[in-house]
Amino acid sequence: MATRAKIIIVGAGFGGIAAAKRLANCDADITVIDRRNYHLFQPLLYQVATADLSPADIAWPIRGLFTRYQNISVVLSEITGLDPAARQLLAGGRRYPYDFLILATGSGNSYFNHPEWEPDAPGLKRIIDATEIRKRILLAFEQAEIADDSATQRRLLNFVVIGGGPTGVELAGAIAELAKVALARDFRHIDPKAARIVLVEAGQRLLASFPPELSDYAQRCLEKLGVEIALGKPVRAVDGTGVRIGETLLPTATVVWAAGVKVEGPGQWLGVETDRGGRVAVAADLSVPSHPNIFVIGDAAKVTWEGEKLVPGLAPAAKQEGRYVADVIRARIEHRPAPAAFRYRHVGSLATIGRNAAVVDFGRFQLKGWLAWWFWGLIHIYFLINTRAATLVLLQWFWAYLTRKKGARLITGLRPLFTHPKR
Amino acid sequence: MATRAKIIIVGAGFGGIAAAKRLANCDADITVIDRRNYHLFQPLLYQVATADLSPADIAWPIRGLFTRYQNISVVLSEITGLDPAARQLLAGGRRYPYDFLILATGSGNSYFNHPEWEPDAPGLKRIIDATEIRKRILLAFEQAEIADDSATQRRLLNFVVIGGGPTGVELAGAIAELAKVALARDFRHIDPKAARIVLVEAGQRLLASFPPELSDYAQRCLEKLGVEIALGKPVRAVDGTGVRIGETLLPTATVVWAAGVKVEGPGQWLGVETDRGGRVAVAADLSVPSHPNIFVIGDAAKVTWEGEKLVPGLAPAAKQEGRYVADVIRARIEHRPAPAAFRYRHVGSLATIGRNAAVVDFGRFQLKGWLAWWFWGLIHIYFLINTRAATLVLLQWFWAYLTRKKGARLITGLRPLFTHPKR
Repeated sequence: MATRAKIIIVGAGFGGIAAAKRLANCDADITVIDRRNYHLFQPLLYQVATADLSPADIAWPIRGLFTRYQNISVVLSEITGLDPAARQLLAGGRRYPYDFLILATGSGNSYFNHPEWEPDAPGLKRIIDATEIRKRILLAFEQAEIADDSATQRRLLNFVVIGGGPTGVELAGAIAELAKVALARDFRHIDPKAARIVLVEAGQRLLASFPPELSDYAQRCLEKLGVEIALGKPVRAVDGTGVRIGETLLPTATVVWAAGVKVEGPGQWLGVETDRGGRVAVAADLSVPSHPNIFVIGDAAKVTWEGEKLVPGLAPAAKQEGRYVADVIRARIEHRPAPAAFRYRHVGSLATIGRNAAVVDFGRFQLKGWLAWWFWGLIHIYFLINTRAATLVLLQWFWAYLTRKKGARLITGLRPLFTHPKR
Repeated sequence: MATRAKIIIVGAGFGGIAAAKRLANCDADITVIDRRNYHLFQPLLYQVATADLSPADIAWPIRGLFTRYQNISVVLSEITGLDPAARQLLAGGRRYPYDFLILATGSGNSYFNHPEWEPDAPGLKRIIDATEIRKRILLAFEQAEIADDSATQRRLLNFVVIGGGPTGVELAGAIAELAKVALARDFRHIDPKAARIVLVEAGQRLLASFPPELSDYAQRCLEKLGVEIALGKPVRAVDGTGVRIGETLLPTATVVWAAGVKVEGPGQWLGVETDRGGRVAVAADLSVPSHPNIFVIGDAAKVTWEGEKLVPGLAPAAKQEGRYVADVIRARIEHRPAPAAFRYRHVGSLATIGRNAAVVDFGRFQLKGWLAWWFWGLIHIYFLINTRAATLVLLQWFWAYLTRKKGARLITGLRPLFTHPKR
């Protein structure tokens, strides 16, 4: 190649960061573009929503990750389009030329053709989502405390989590602990322990991707925490008054969406077919068919393993793909033979349910209970991106474990009392 | 008294919290009303604005402070008026009857009859202010990094702090350290060290309430950090393009207001005269003349000491007043003789300037330099309201001291890229 290769990575999630780090010492100019200035440790985002952690505990400025690498620059901008013929990416009114492009844009929430539900049932993808959900949960208790009639009070003390996957399970457990333990003695006119937390799942069991015995265990743990579980009940409607679950209307002011993800961006920019979830089908080397210099990784890519199975939308998968694609690009730049086709190695799945309860599925064997919970905690601490974050999170967990208090119970926002519509 | 006395405390700042805690074991029902759900450790708020700390490090749910006291209830609501004849407080569409009322509502920013400057020059009072200022500062660097022309770049790298009191000095120092140290190596197209930080003060010296030699010292320290200081220069105009200082227009996108405070609320609610700053003049027992069962404390009260001097708007003053008023009310409830007139005891004034530089004025003697800096840090750690917060802040300061990094460099908000108007 005559000039230095230009590599653009869109998205600084687990996949994008892994690719950039792997390419850091490559003879190329790398640009990481993201519409946010931080990398988010998404597996712990629900703990911001439930007042266990602060945003800065689980998010770090992208720039700070690449301080040492002079060939990596970071651009805060939003992609508006792609011109594959000219090999240019369009973002924030400018054109960024590339030789290789990695699209690692992640996924958003899918409301299954009901986008109108979103304002009343926010999902958990960005920091602002987590602080908004935290605000709604805490405001519901505050409003119940000063409510005049018991119907309003009961409605405000109903909390609905939609979706029984790991995020839904973790959220429901953490909301239950917030209500039944952390807030238990802080109100004078309501009893936070009387709050109803309802976890709704359209399928026949929680944690559908785990073995059935772990699903059962998770359900028993949640029920012990006081969570009501509605299985096989599709959500028919969500609005400001409540949620219609099957034929029943459950009045509530606080709904959290954890039911499905959808990819937006890469398919449209590339003008290629996607699957129903918006994922772009990729070749064996994770490149886009007919665009060998464009790669899609992480949640945005449709990659299969062990035959028909879809590689799950987990951090380890995105990281493996990021590193693999970096190796493919490096081989091409250095005129070396391409690595063999991508092969996903599944490490395991984890979900935590509450204090001293979690499930871990390694495929060959399973863990549950306190051992799984400690394992879950250690793994997450280990993967937190730097020592400062790990220390802070560890300290706060330790504190919460001892005192059973929640440290980040802040209702913030410009007009905290009135932005959440009174219903 | 036939029934249990009802005491309402409006505002959960340093004064309100101190009064409530002192009254906790009194035979009375106490209601603390605030429009926010958290008590804020305001002296460290600037460190949230400069990405050193997270909101939850310096703010705690008010309820959590009173968990143990069953006679204290907390109401999240906004005061709309007062009916002293009926002894009722109006908040959120309801009437709250009281026997004793303590108004501890604090102060807001004064723009000296230029309220139109506020959107372009936010002050530092609430958490949302601090995260907004943090966003503006960090976004200015991000936008400069991708700016096309050098004029825009230079404008984006100008930062103006208006007001040379402790808050202005602390902010200017912290912004300089952010630009010149923490961000120094994180950009590829701009040199953050080239940022101009301008501290504007209408008077003839910084820290006017400190002895002149400490003002000089503070100025020298700031200049060493690279802060430009404009003394005796009143601000004539602030808008989206920049700040007019005396006759000079300084183009900038980031202005922070630290120039003056104003009290709103108590004067209007009571229908009494206030001083120019909105403060309510109080009697020797801090009650409102003609309303012996209503007290005003903290920033909202005009209290004098040593003859003509105004008691300063500092946390220790508010706390002393809160405890004093609690004693007055308790004496009345218990039919005991009233305490002697309130006497303010001035402990000292502190301001930090940057790493290893601070000033402390104890009246009789002064401290400056690294000793003052360590003293400042220890005092603030000591007064942080609980061990968890103290440990977290200490850990983050320690980390920052070692690595010179800033941990909370997050640009959050619903549309981070575009809410800050492009100019």
